[in-house]
Amino acid sequence: MNATTRPRVVIIGAGFGGLAAVKALKNAPVDVTIIDRRNHHLFQPLLYQVATAGLAPNQIATPIRAIVRNQKNATVELGTVEAIDTAKREVVLGDRRVAYDYLIIATGARHAYFGHDAWEEFAPGLKTLEDATDQRKRILLAFERAELEPDAAERARLTTFVVIGGGPTGVETAGAIAELAKKALARDYRRIDPKSARIILIEAALRILTAFPDDLSEHARHALEKLGVEIRLGKAVIHVDETGITLGDEHIASRTVIWAAGVQSSPAARWLNIPADRVGRAIIAGNLRAPGNDNIFVIGDCAAVNDASGRQLPGVAPVAKQQGVYAARVIKAAFEGNPLTEPFAYVDYGNLATVGRKAAVADFRGFHLKGVIGWLVWCAAHIYYLIGFKNRIAVALDWTWSYLTFDRGARLITGDIEDEHPQQNAKRDAA
Amino acid sequence: MNATTRPRVVIIGAGFGGLAAVKALKNAPVDVTIIDRRNHHLFQPLLYQVATAGLAPNQIATPIRAIVRNQKNATVELGTVEAIDTAKREVVLGDRRVAYDYLIIATGARHAYFGHDAWEEFAPGLKTLEDATDQRKRILLAFERAELEPDAAERARLTTFVVIGGGPTGVETAGAIAELAKKALARDYRRIDPKSARIILIEAALRILTAFPDDLSEHARHALEKLGVEIRLGKAVIHVDETGITLGDEHIASRTVIWAAGVQSSPAARWLNIPADRVGRAIIAGNLRAPGNDNIFVIGDCAAVNDASGRQLPGVAPVAKQQGVYAARVIKAAFEGNPLTEPFAYVDYGNLATVGRKAAVADFRGFHLKGVIGWLVWCAAHIYYLIGFKNRIAVALDWTWSYLTFDRGARLITGDIEDEHPQQNAKRDAA
Repeated sequence: MNATTRPRVVIIGAGFGGLAAVKALKNAPVDVTIIDRRNHHLFQPLLYQVATAGLAPNQIATPIRAIVRNQKNATVELGTVEAIDTAKREVVLGDRRVAYDYLIIATGARHAYFGHDAWEEFAPGLKTLEDATDQRKRILLAFERAELEPDAAERARLTTFVVIGGGPTGVETAGAIAELAKKALARDYRRIDPKSARIILIEAALRILTAFPDDLSEHARHALEKLGVEIRLGKAVIHVDETGITLGDEHIASRTVIWAAGVQSSPAARWLNIPADRVGRAIIAGNLRAPGNDNIFVIGDCAAVNDASGRQLPGVAPVAKQQGVYAARVIKAAFEGNPLTEPFAYVDYGNLATVGRKAAVADFRGFHLKGVIGWLVWCAAHIYYLIGFKNRIAVALDWTWSYLTFDRGARLITGDIEDEHPQQNAKRDAA
Repeated sequence: MNATTRPRVVIIGAGFGGLAAVKALKNAPVDVTIIDRRNHHLFQPLLYQVATAGLAPNQIATPIRAIVRNQKNATVELGTVEAIDTAKREVVLGDRRVAYDYLIIATGARHAYFGHDAWEEFAPGLKTLEDATDQRKRILLAFERAELEPDAAERARLTTFVVIGGGPTGVETAGAIAELAKKALARDYRRIDPKSARIILIEAALRILTAFPDDLSEHARHALEKLGVEIRLGKAVIHVDETGITLGDEHIASRTVIWAAGVQSSPAARWLNIPADRVGRAIIAGNLRAPGNDNIFVIGDCAAVNDASGRQLPGVAPVAKQQGVYAARVIKAAFEGNPLTEPFAYVDYGNLATVGRKAAVADFRGFHLKGVIGWLVWCAAHIYYLIGFKNRIAVALDWTWSYLTFDRGARLITGDIEDEHPQQNAKRDAA
């Protein structure tokens, strides 16, 4: 088989699922093309740390080209997929088309507002590096504006932070904002006291971290409250605007609301014209193939797949990675004349979430860890899975530094500040 | 003297000059207010490293509040100065006004195109972190687009980088792009060979680094040529557009042109309605006071000051820093009943510029260093002057890492890529 006739495997999306598939195809007799809108793989589990000034963007992002540098059968193309022409077996990117024999769609999800898209302006979510640096700017600017604000009520609105959604992202974000306000910023202002900032975490269910067992979610609640986070359970947000949020019949005045409550799948199902669930995930069987297209796999957060017991698999990195490896194995097995027929089976090694400094919860198949031990395991696991030897060292050093000093290394406000200060939009050439 | 009647010193701009003044006033019986449009002090000498993906933005920027955290008489205000009301002694920021008894204006400079403002779109300059991340995006996207480009001539345009201006910034940028293309990116593409990229440095004078002695500027030229940079001397750029640049009667096709040729002062002279030189710097006497306003100092890149021999002081960090200290000393001396009357005198310790890995030139009052020794001195000096203990460690580690591996730690394309890819501007929710 010469190079020009090798089967072409195209992978859309260089997240956890896509990259796992690329790597699993390393020694296969195929040509792999990875298409992504971004030039970097993003370690999303630590994105909240960028949003709260703990880590810098480059510490949790690695160029895709650098990751596959030594994988000779892999090519990277930067591009935005617009459609998939299943008849011609081509991915459509504007004028450009990329032909495939096998296609793996791993395009992930974005945050969603379930019919309340107007809320996004006031309660942005967290899925990309730009989302994270925007949130960092909003959080840091709120303190800057409070420092200059003569009106006490407005100062209180500016130093009230509302996080909507009590899953891991919401819990981690609320904890990190509390630590930022009460530790890193504590001595940096002269007129306001950042330690008096209010951080409110809102969850519609009756407990936070519903994916965890009761005792761990209770532990996390105590740890957050110890950090000064107010937790409101059992009430759904019914309105969000520039004045704050409405929770039942209560209005909470806040200038900084963060959305961690829901995701919407990327349009894989629409591209393939196949059924999708409520949040847009393509409904996929256990073989991970798109209905009607045996050469197309849909994996990770853009696929809705049930396990053997009929429970839907969670939208977490380990599921996406294992699915990527599975798809690669099916493709390789096809050449080896030994087709793989058993369906995908997820192996759940456990579940981790951190609340803050020296506090995390971990559930390893019923074996529960919490507190300092849980936190050390959380740190080790996240550093271990970070891609790139240098990023691991850099993050480990940063965390050690933050632990010892309570400082934050990435407290930059970048981008235009003027859109946040409408009264000061005159000149770019001043100060 | 109680706290409310202490003299108010307002400093506009937290660059090298402004911060030096703040620190020199640490134990003075005054209230200091620092006003800046940004929340961070930027270490501009290393900005070209962010633009060429060697360092991350947070490594060369430190929050102003963190720098003056322990200086109890200093307050930081984020804001954009629009005017100065010298009659009322107030700085005007939109609706807000800040009263001063003494004012130090240290607002620096931006790049300038001397009547060719239309060139900026095609040849952006380098003064802010956003400038740097924009340039990084342009440079990295040029390689990405070349990798996808079927037309050989357009591929050549995309991999031709033109740097206009042979001062330290231009020399450092050209050297860093050459190292990026020929080392860090060398094995990352499958269709193009980044090692064949052309990097062209243009200088209208007859040698580069005209502020250095002949032998050092000659050494720098050789070092750049060894890195593969083409140097064009003695010809001025007469046109820049999206196709490239025109140099005399020669057109050089390039999609990535970088401007390092000139600066324009911020509007200090306009605010004060005093005479300015050709590039907008306020013309200031040796006492650094604004004509007609003995309580206003103008320092750093926004002031045109001559030394005792009538030669204009260069727009470099050491001048700004020494001027900041001088202004602070004058203010302190006024309270001590011992007015300082001698004019500012600049002590020139030397001049440094780097060409790339293991190559730099240094001129210490006639004592010349070059090559590896020059480069080690350059590294040590820049790390020493970086503000913040952690940034020093982080930059030292990054440089050691890059030295050992030729890798670059900050190769991120952030922000919208679609404006650079007009054919792909459809969806944000794909890939």
